[in-house]
Amino acid sequence: MDEQNAVASAPSGNTLPNSAGALFQLFRDGTPRTRSDLTAMTGFARSTISARVEELLNAALIRPAGENSSTGGRPPSTFTVNPEARSVLAVDLGGTHARIAVTDLATRVLSERQQELDITKGPVAVLDAVGRIGLELLQEAGRSPEDLLGVGVGVPGPVEFATGRPMSPPIMPGWDHFDIPGHLRRWFPGPILVDNDVNAMALGEHAVAYPQVANMMFVKVATGIGSGIISDGRLQHGAQGAAGDLGHIATPDGDATPCTCGNSGCLEAVASGPAIAAQLRERGFDVPNHAAMLELVRSGDLEALRTVRQAGRQVGSVLAGCVNLLNPSVIVIGGVVSTAGEHFLAGIREAVYSRSLPLATQHLRIVASQTTARAGVLGASALVTGHGLSVENVNRLIG
Amino acid sequence: MDEQNAVASAPSGNTLPNSAGALFQLFRDGTPRTRSDLTAMTGFARSTISARVEELLNAALIRPAGENSSTGGRPPSTFTVNPEARSVLAVDLGGTHARIAVTDLATRVLSERQQELDITKGPVAVLDAVGRIGLELLQEAGRSPEDLLGVGVGVPGPVEFATGRPMSPPIMPGWDHFDIPGHLRRWFPGPILVDNDVNAMALGEHAVAYPQVANMMFVKVATGIGSGIISDGRLQHGAQGAAGDLGHIATPDGDATPCTCGNSGCLEAVASGPAIAAQLRERGFDVPNHAAMLELVRSGDLEALRTVRQAGRQVGSVLAGCVNLLNPSVIVIGGVVSTAGEHFLAGIREAVYSRSLPLATQHLRIVASQTTARAGVLGASALVTGHGLSVENVNRLIG
Repeated sequence: MDEQNAVASAPSGNTLPNSAGALFQLFRDGTPRTRSDLTAMTGFARSTISARVEELLNAALIRPAGENSSTGGRPPSTFTVNPEARSVLAVDLGGTHARIAVTDLATRVLSERQQELDITKGPVAVLDAVGRIGLELLQEAGRSPEDLLGVGVGVPGPVEFATGRPMSPPIMPGWDHFDIPGHLRRWFPGPILVDNDVNAMALGEHAVAYPQVANMMFVKVATGIGSGIISDGRLQHGAQGAAGDLGHIATPDGDATPCTCGNSGCLEAVASGPAIAAQLRERGFDVPNHAAMLELVRSGDLEALRTVRQAGRQVGSVLAGCVNLLNPSVIVIGGVVSTAGEHFLAGIREAVYSRSLPLATQHLRIVASQTTARAGVLGASALVTGHGLSVENVNRLIG
Repeated sequence: MDEQNAVASAPSGNTLPNSAGALFQLFRDGTPRTRSDLTAMTGFARSTISARVEELLNAALIRPAGENSSTGGRPPSTFTVNPEARSVLAVDLGGTHARIAVTDLATRVLSERQQELDITKGPVAVLDAVGRIGLELLQEAGRSPEDLLGVGVGVPGPVEFATGRPMSPPIMPGWDHFDIPGHLRRWFPGPILVDNDVNAMALGEHAVAYPQVANMMFVKVATGIGSGIISDGRLQHGAQGAAGDLGHIATPDGDATPCTCGNSGCLEAVASGPAIAAQLRERGFDVPNHAAMLELVRSGDLEALRTVRQAGRQVGSVLAGCVNLLNPSVIVIGGVVSTAGEHFLAGIREAVYSRSLPLATQHLRIVASQTTARAGVLGASALVTGHGLSVENVNRLIG
């Protein structure tokens, strides 16, 4: 149940209920509050509240939000979270590209770069490149490393969330058990949180598009197929950080296509980008990779559309089980294959609605990602603010 | 995200951090604490702590736990939760039988009854019987209705957790949308919480056997097949309270057995008690129901053992997907079919370990239920204590 990836070994700050960090939590819903509001909400003496508000103002974590004149006489000051108090360095590493951004505490992008970065170059080369780019982006945004609340990193493989180390990641040679937080700490101060890319995408989409939705699933369909699960308002990692791995769930039609994992009929073997491209090649199309496949689909070729729709049905046949199991109210479909268009989404919906239980689908929405290519980097930012603005960590900032 | 089933409309108590209810939470891990411990843990003035401890003592929610003489001089008193402060009425309704118990706040059974109670008699007849038996059990335990922290009820069908009403429950004619808390309130004071029976079983097994396990799944295999999911330490209901429905997930081998839900190849259609009995009848055995089927299996008949093992594999083939999706560290198998013996469990393990990803299975245990027939009633009790001992509700008790 440890959510303190990468900072578990940091000295434990205090979590006292009358600390500034505890009071700061009352601002996190975005509602401006007066000292009187805070007194009423906590039962603490007005002098305690005033002292804590002063601490938060001095640390610039809150700021005046204008005056409230409804009480007559001299209006009390209202305060609100200051999203510019700190910055976040957010890193989304893919197989061949990286997207890196500096954001504020409200997940707004201040500066951003997307560039080629081959994950197979290994952790030292890749993370040092991230370090250099990160410093440049901080400068572009007019921020310094000392401003950082922390660094969030999404990587394309399973991560032991408690330590921030990749665990036998199939497409990241040289990264197995590598101490990503330890290496990035040479470049940046503050906590460094690492999660797998799909979990980051789920957090990013949730933070930006569905902050009020308690049960959501984010499905990425690209070279691989994976998902990030938000249940009861929280991202779920499972016991080893392996939760959400849809790609190797068996499709229910007894398909015998062999999979790289050693089994057959896995969802990834029949509905991923490379799988769809292979199916089209078998039908005589010249689609060397899934970029070419997507182009063919977008051109409106009927056979390609049919193939993509059938892949959507396969994804939906597995998601139908997920819907029965998790009963989400929103399933977001992202990843490059989802950009193939409505036929893919239509295939997914068709299979989910025909196989899931009515109680679980009556209010279910299956939608395309709104944050698209930015989902991962926004989620890496949300990973940091979710952790770094806790009672304990705010007290450490004020410390 | 509302966890306040049945009491959502009760007047909102206070949740102040320096209230007795907030202080009570510091005792809930079972560790005895002194006033000095509490002062150090909260930062509150010693006078505040003393006043709150006095309130909790007066309400008998805590009690002296012996003396701590390590500090020299006059030893400070240590205090601990008093599990006898209140009682819980716990009700586990099945299709044909009910198990009803009075427990203390530590889920210990004080009095208990199991008896025939046909759910198809409808909610008024069944719940009035529960009322009468509950009063008798309270008397047996030397408790009064006014002692109750609350009433917990497990029912054999889907429940809208926010209201405690069954939602189109297939085997509960007349119960659809019935206000169970509203009716039981004629019999008992205090909050009344209703959940489906498998969720209750998951809570019961977790509370008694795996309190430290954050990611657990409880699977019931009986007339139907369902599960209760504990992720990140919390029972998951999903958006409509429908989470955990394993029975209508399609098995991955393309089986065409028709299911009562209108689809085919559902897990329940191939591996439930009635499904196994039907398979044995097809092979010429005289097994009119699954009780006879279990007897045949326990007699050691090889064909029956093979059939049960194959049903186990089917359950395992669906659980393999659940393991990839949720990454639990413990899967508990309960329900009457699980009492068929090791062959069933062996079939489940075989399929899960062959189909799930290594990262997700390396520390996974698949085990038989320890609480067996009592899982549901213990979970109904845990449902009440989990809710009724919150900050707000403890303050309401004291208020």
